[in-house]
Parts: sequence; C-alpha cells; structure tokens
Amino acid sequence: MFRNRMPRYEVLSGDAMEVLDAGWRRLIAEVGVEFMSDRAVELFREAGQKIEDNTVFLDPEFVLEQVAKAPREFDVAARNPEHSIHIGGDAMAFGAVYGPPFVREGDVRRDATMDDFRNFTKLAQSYSVLDSAGGVICEPSDAPLDSRHLDMTYALQTLTDKVYMGNVVSGVNARDTIAMSEIVFGGRDAIEQTPVSISLINCNSPLRWDDRMLDAQFEYCAAGQPVVLTPFLLMGAMSPVTIPAALVQQITEALSGIALAQLIRPGTPVIFGSFLSNIDMQSGSPQFGTPESGIGLLCTGQIARHFGLPFRSGGGLTSSQVPDAQAGYEALMTLLPTFLAGANWVMHSAGWLEGGLVAGYEKFVVDTQLLEMLRVEFTPLEIDEASLAFDAHVEVGHGGHFLGAMHTMERFRTCFYRPFLNSSDNYERWMSKGESADTAARAAKLWRQRLDDYEQPPLDDALRAELEEYVVRRRAELGD
Amino acid sequence: MFRNRMPRYEVLSGDAMEVLDAGWRRLIAEVGVEFMSDRAVELFREAGQKIEDNTVFLDPEFVLEQVAKAPREFDVAARNPEHSIHIGGDAMAFGAVYGPPFVREGDVRRDATMDDFRNFTKLAQSYSVLDSAGGVICEPSDAPLDSRHLDMTYALQTLTDKVYMGNVVSGVNARDTIAMSEIVFGGRDAIEQTPVSISLINCNSPLRWDDRMLDAQFEYCAAGQPVVLTPFLLMGAMSPVTIPAALVQQITEALSGIALAQLIRPGTPVIFGSFLSNIDMQSGSPQFGTPESGIGLLCTGQIARHFGLPFRSGGGLTSSQVPDAQAGYEALMTLLPTFLAGANWVMHSAGWLEGGLVAGYEKFVVDTQLLEMLRVEFTPLEIDEASLAFDAHVEVGHGGHFLGAMHTMERFRTCFYRPFLNSSDNYERWMSKGESADTAARAAKLWRQRLDDYEQPPLDDALRAELEEYVVRRRAELGD
Repeated sequence: MFRNRMPRYEVLSGDAMEVLDAGWRRLIAEVGVEFMSDRAVELFREAGQKIEDNTVFLDPEFVLEQVAKAPREFDVAARNPEHSIHIGGDAMAFGAVYGPPFVREGDVRRDATMDDFRNFTKLAQSYSVLDSAGGVICEPSDAPLDSRHLDMTYALQTLTDKVYMGNVVSGVNARDTIAMSEIVFGGRDAIEQTPVSISLINCNSPLRWDDRMLDAQFEYCAAGQPVVLTPFLLMGAMSPVTIPAALVQQITEALSGIALAQLIRPGTPVIFGSFLSNIDMQSGSPQFGTPESGIGLLCTGQIARHFGLPFRSGGGLTSSQVPDAQAGYEALMTLLPTFLAGANWVMHSAGWLEGGLVAGYEKFVVDTQLLEMLRVEFTPLEIDEASLAFDAHVEVGHGGHFLGAMHTMERFRTCFYRPFLNSSDNYERWMSKGESADTAARAAKLWRQRLDDYEQPPLDDALRAELEEYVVRRRAELGD
Repeated sequence: MFRNRMPRYEVLSGDAMEVLDAGWRRLIAEVGVEFMSDRAVELFREAGQKIEDNTVFLDPEFVLEQVAKAPREFDVAARNPEHSIHIGGDAMAFGAVYGPPFVREGDVRRDATMDDFRNFTKLAQSYSVLDSAGGVICEPSDAPLDSRHLDMTYALQTLTDKVYMGNVVSGVNARDTIAMSEIVFGGRDAIEQTPVSISLINCNSPLRWDDRMLDAQFEYCAAGQPVVLTPFLLMGAMSPVTIPAALVQQITEALSGIALAQLIRPGTPVIFGSFLSNIDMQSGSPQFGTPESGIGLLCTGQIARHFGLPFRSGGGLTSSQVPDAQAGYEALMTLLPTFLAGANWVMHSAGWLEGGLVAGYEKFVVDTQLLEMLRVEFTPLEIDEASLAFDAHVEVGHGGHFLGAMHTMERFRTCFYRPFLNSSDNYERWMSKGESADTAARAAKLWRQRLDDYEQPPLDDALRAELEEYVVRRRAELGD
C-alpha cells in the first residue's frame, strides 16, 4: 500500500478552524441529530444525552470524549497478508467504485450483472494500485435481491485476496458478511482482534441516520469491524450552499455517528467519512470534480487530523457519461487533492462514471493510470550530492545531450515512471495504429487483456467449500 | 488577472535547498555556461568573469549580485489598461500555446496558417481567463518566413488588446517588435517606463545560449522589455535523468541568462524560466503531464522564490494527439501544480496538443475550462458565522433538503461555479444530444461560436495606419 510522505496541503487558518469548531458544537447541541433506531437513541439516553423523539441533542464535550476512544490508526487484514492495509497516519488505501446500477463498456451502457461484478473484482485484484475491490462495485441486477450480498461477498473473498467492504443494506446482511469473514479468517475472536472488513455507513443528510444502516453499524461495531461514518453532502440539496456550512454539518454528522460507534463498543475502529460535492443549481444534477469539492476535500483532511481521526474522501469522480477529456480531468480534479490531503481510505478510486450511476470498464483503466502517476508524484525526492550528476555535465559539456552519458546509462531503466495507458507516439506511428487509438480505445484493450491474464488467488479447498455451503444455506433461508 | 491567495505547496526541505544551492554554485563556476555571442562574452569579461573561448565561468556571488538588481515584481501594460498585468508576488498571468507548426481541428491535423493564427488570437481575446494570446500561437506556414513576425505582431496588437509576447527569432525581429510597440504605446520612453511585451529566451540546454536568441535578448533588455530566461530541459536528453540534477542545471542556466540581462541593462525586468519534463527512455519521445514534471514544477516555484524572482512554468501540457481523456488529465497534471506553485507567467495555458507540435482548437476550449475551475478552487474560503448557515438547519430540519431554503434562495445564482464545457446531463438528456456529445464535440461548437461572436477591440485609425505602413515598408525591406 502507499505511504504518502509528502507534505499535506493545508488551507484552513487557525481562526477558520475555530469558527468551524464553534459551528459544529452549536449545531450538534441545538439542532441535534436524528437516529431512526430505538437502540441507538437508548444508548445516547443512557449516556445522559438530551433526547426528543428520535433526535439526540449531543453535548460536544461528550462527543469528543467518545471520539477520543477511537484508535487514531489501525490495521485491516487481508487473506493474503501482503495485501493487508493500514488505516491512518500517512497510509493511503484505495478501493474501486461503489454502488453503480449500470456499467459502460465502450459505447454500450446497460444494467450491471453479476458477471460484471466478477469482472471488476478480478480487475481490482489485477491492478496493484488498488488495495481493495471495495464492496458493491456494481449492483448486479440479475442476482436475487435478498441474497445478492452473499454472491458479492463470496466473489470478493474468492476472486481477490485483498481487503473487502461489508454489506450494509441491513443488519441481516451485515451478520452474513461477518459470518463469512469468520469462516475465512478463523472465527470471531480472530476478526475482533484484527478487523478484516471496512463498512460504509452513510448518513441520510441532513442530520439523520436511518434504521437499516444503523442496524448494520451495530453489527459491525459489535464485531470490531471498522465503519466509515459518511455524511452524504451534495451542497444545495443535502446541505446549505456555503462550503463552511457543509463542513460544519459534515463534522456534526460524522462525529455523531462515531460517538454511537464508541457507545456500541468502546475503541471500535472508525473512519471520519466525507462525500462532499455540489449540485448544479439550475438543473439539480449532482456535479463531480468541481472546484468546490476540491476545496472541501482539502479542508476535510485538515479537520479529520484536528480530531485525530483517519478519514475517507476522494476518488476518481466525474459527471461525464463517457471516458472523455472531461472524465479525465474531473477524475484528477478529485484525485490530486485526495493525495494533497492525504486521504486514508479512498473509495471510488477506479471505474466511476456518470455521477456514480455507471461503473465504466475503460474508466477503470484510466483511473488506475492516474493512481500510478500520483503515487510517483507524491514520492519525496532524494536530494544528495550524487543526485546532482556533476560528472555527467563534465562528460556531456555545453550544448550536448545526455542520452548516452554514463549517469544516464546507469539509470535509464528506472529513472522515470513509464505510463501504461498514455501515448506519446509521434504522429505517424500513432496514425498507423488506426484512428481509434485514443485513450478510451487503448483502455478497452487493456482491461480485456487483464481479464484474459487474470489468475485466481489460491484459497484452501475446505474454506471454499464451507463458504459455498454457507451461501447455499443462507440463500435458501432468505427464500431466493 | 488572477491573484492566487491560497498557500504555496512547498516540497523542498531547507537541507534539500542547501544541496541544490551548493550544486549550482559548483556547476556555474567549474563547468560554466557557453554564450555564443561575442557581445555577451565581452560583457562578462568586462565584469571580471573568467572566460575560455565562449564559455563563461561565473562567480556565484557575482551572479547573485546581478540577480539582486532585477525587480522582484513589475507591471506589463496592455493597450487596454484593464488587461494590463502584474508579474510576481501572488499574481498569475496566462498566455496561449506557443510555437506549434500544426493545428488540429476535430479529426483534421494540418499545417498552421495565418488564418489559424488570427483565429487563436481572437479566441485568446475572447476568453477572459487568458491574459495574453502569447506570441507564436502557431507558426503560420503560409506567411513569408522573413516577415511573418510582422504579421504575427500586427495580429497580436490589433486583434487583441491584451499583453503580447515579442518575436525572438533574431535581433532584427526583436527590433521590429519593439518598433511596433513604440507605435502603439507612444514611443520608446513610454515602453521603457512601463514594459509592454514579454519575450521568451530559450537556452540551448545544456549550458549554452545561442546567438540569435541572445541578439533578441540584447534588444529587449536594452528597451527594458522583460525576458523569460528559460532552460529547456527534457530530462534524459537536455539534462541528466535525476530531478535534482535538472533543478541545479535549471538554476545555473536561468541565473546565467539573468546575469547577462542585468549586465545589458541593470534593473531590467526578468522572469526565471522553467520548461522541465522528461523523455520516454525507450522511444526518446518527450512526455508531458508526467509526475516528474509535476514535482519539478513545485520545486521550481520554491527555488524562484528563494532567489526573489518571478517565475514562468506550467501550462496545459500533454503528449496526447487528440483532446481525449489523456489530454484532459495530463493538462491538469501540469495546470494544478501550476496553481499550487503559484507560477507568475504561464505559457502554453490553452491549446497545447501532441507535445507542443499541435495547436488544438478543441483543446484550447478544454484548457480555458480548466483555468476557470482552478481559479475558483484557488480562491480562499470566507469562513465566518454567517457562512455556517445555522438558521438554514433550523428551517430545514433532519432529513429534509435545502433546495428551497431561504439561505439557498439568497445565494443560488452565484454560490457554485458553473462550468461551460462539462456535462452533467442525465443519461436520457445526454443521449438526446446525439452520440457525439462528448467533450471534444462540445468544445468544437464552443470555439466556432466564440469566433462568430468575436468583436475586434477598438484601435485608433491613425495608429492602425501607422502600424500597417510599418509592416508594408519592412516587408519590402526584408525582401518578402
């Protein structure tokens, strides 16, 4: 996994942070947060918080006490130890797109299927810049609704040996994910000792946590599995239109969910979540890769560090329908600030298209290219006497060239990052490849080749049989 | 013009800067710099520097004394005072692509013509994010070679009222540019008082300044017109393959050119230039938008500030042949660090394609879109009590939406930046626009519309006649 040892780009002054700090304290205490779960409300009541119906008015100092119980950093185990990850500090871990009901393959856009899900899972296994396939890489419309979480989890566990995300549609689904994790990782004690999954708990912003996601949160937290408490903010719709207001709301929502996590199980690992962009105020459409979301991302990193929490943000987001110029620059417009802010857990890192409605095969390749480039860019320079190549200048002289210099010959294989997708062919060579040799066409060849070359990571036969038995049994019990 | 009031992203430690500092001092003193101009060598000799043939071995302290004579910041006047610019400090000024022999218009790539030159000049006038059309926006193959600088300068002076760049092909061309500037701006004294052009003096890297460019430099410096002393470094060819070595070479070359400028005319305004990328070590092709060039750009900003000089770097660079995903992300891969580093004078900001061989009409539009987005992103947030929108939360409550909130109604017209090129249409609406509605297709419509809507800025008839008379007379004298 990647360690970002470059400086963080911080844009909030101390004064600005104080204003935001006063803001969330007032909002959480005076407007409060709604928890659509009696269990959650009861925990807050027992802890002495003021309650009206399902609204909890939280004491900011109490919230900070709960936040302090969360670990600043933690490990998440993959079944291949080489793919285990660290969350927090300078560590950055990347997962694929999450949630799209559609896929795009070249000019074709269609409903996602379980085959697509498996394809993307294999691609995530194949690309080393991804630490995880994520969770719901796409929503497989051909798999039975009540049991598809079993199919998806089985695919994530068997087609990759990387960290995976837990299903959060309901408490039932969460229990199934945890049970399947226990099979693969050697039982409940083992996964409580070192967590093996990360689960996304979205807020129904503004200021409401819904029952089904909270049910899932209860299961994951009780099992010591990390949860990402994520305010879902499209400014103008789910939050006010001013960025500072969105930041204050984001703190309020994230910290309220984190406080609940600590009430469920003190010390349970959590991630300060952020999904922050804006709508187009004329059409109401969500916008991604916007300047406002870039600023929000930079601020979010600074805020999460202020609270001593690892954070989730970023990704290769775009509103574009196809992997064109807009898709390229909007994705980078989010991914570059993701690195500048040092996001610890990055969902939607590969494959996101059309505002998250579409998982794009070609876009998946584009994004992995960007991730590779950014890993190189965010690796600090080593500057010492030898790196200055004084002797090469003596050798080459004035107006010469360094192509054959000794210094070059010793380093030419590794001195520069070599992209796998970008073309720098001269015009004649580029033309000889056919008029369709643009980035999307090259990407289409690359992902197909990756699938052809894919090798399934080894898994113990007995474990696999046990997993399959579980899936078959539970599918029957769920009536699918 | 844009003022970048966000923090600079600095990546060099104090120790690293010391190593670089020792590096250029050794290189400039022991290997020296070749000046292919007897006038230049003579000036250095008179100033007590050690000379062998055309190589000047410069004393680093002498160089710093010369550098200290250059202004840290200065103004450049446009003939429309609203378009005058400031160079240095937090000011950032942007010019169009410079130098391509070819143009791309949709699927057609062809030799550039004077009509193309005029078109791009009009587009640069039309897009407010550009402070200048630049200079040689494209090389007009249909204009007579020896006098085309007259045609280009005339177009820049009459089709825009923004700052323009001076021709640097020879001392003769420089004198013509200066003479035409004197016509427009009221004589030699006026332009010496406040400069009206910026000229690009490229180094024939490594460590050699060629005679024709030096001849041009002599003319511009004598007239007090700013010059951009630019090491031209494609690492692996014109510099060693290690970034620190390239940075040391860049300092050496830029400072040597700046020292000459100060010997020609003490106090003449200069810009620390940087054009720094790398070749593909397998094919030898230049690469743009690379991680290495991004790092180099960030370091260059810090180095220029270290010497108290305004600097030129950045642009919308790409190796891509067409305005596709690669073109989008490579352009931003350079432009975003351009803003992070706070480059003061940014050439190649719009239209660059295919490693600078092609001026692309659609790419021009893509880049202006990026510039607009980045200007928004690099505008500091205003964070105060009112921006937190507490009352909006009271009004909307838990789980509601902010679309109709008072806070939203008061701000919805201006709260978010609205892109002119990006699409966030839903799928059905997007499909209804035809399958070709990708970014490049939209860009093609936009630049044609801009040309249709173009209005020539007013110019006094007598001035115009005087300019035309000059062009006709000089063309005849030059034998074209």
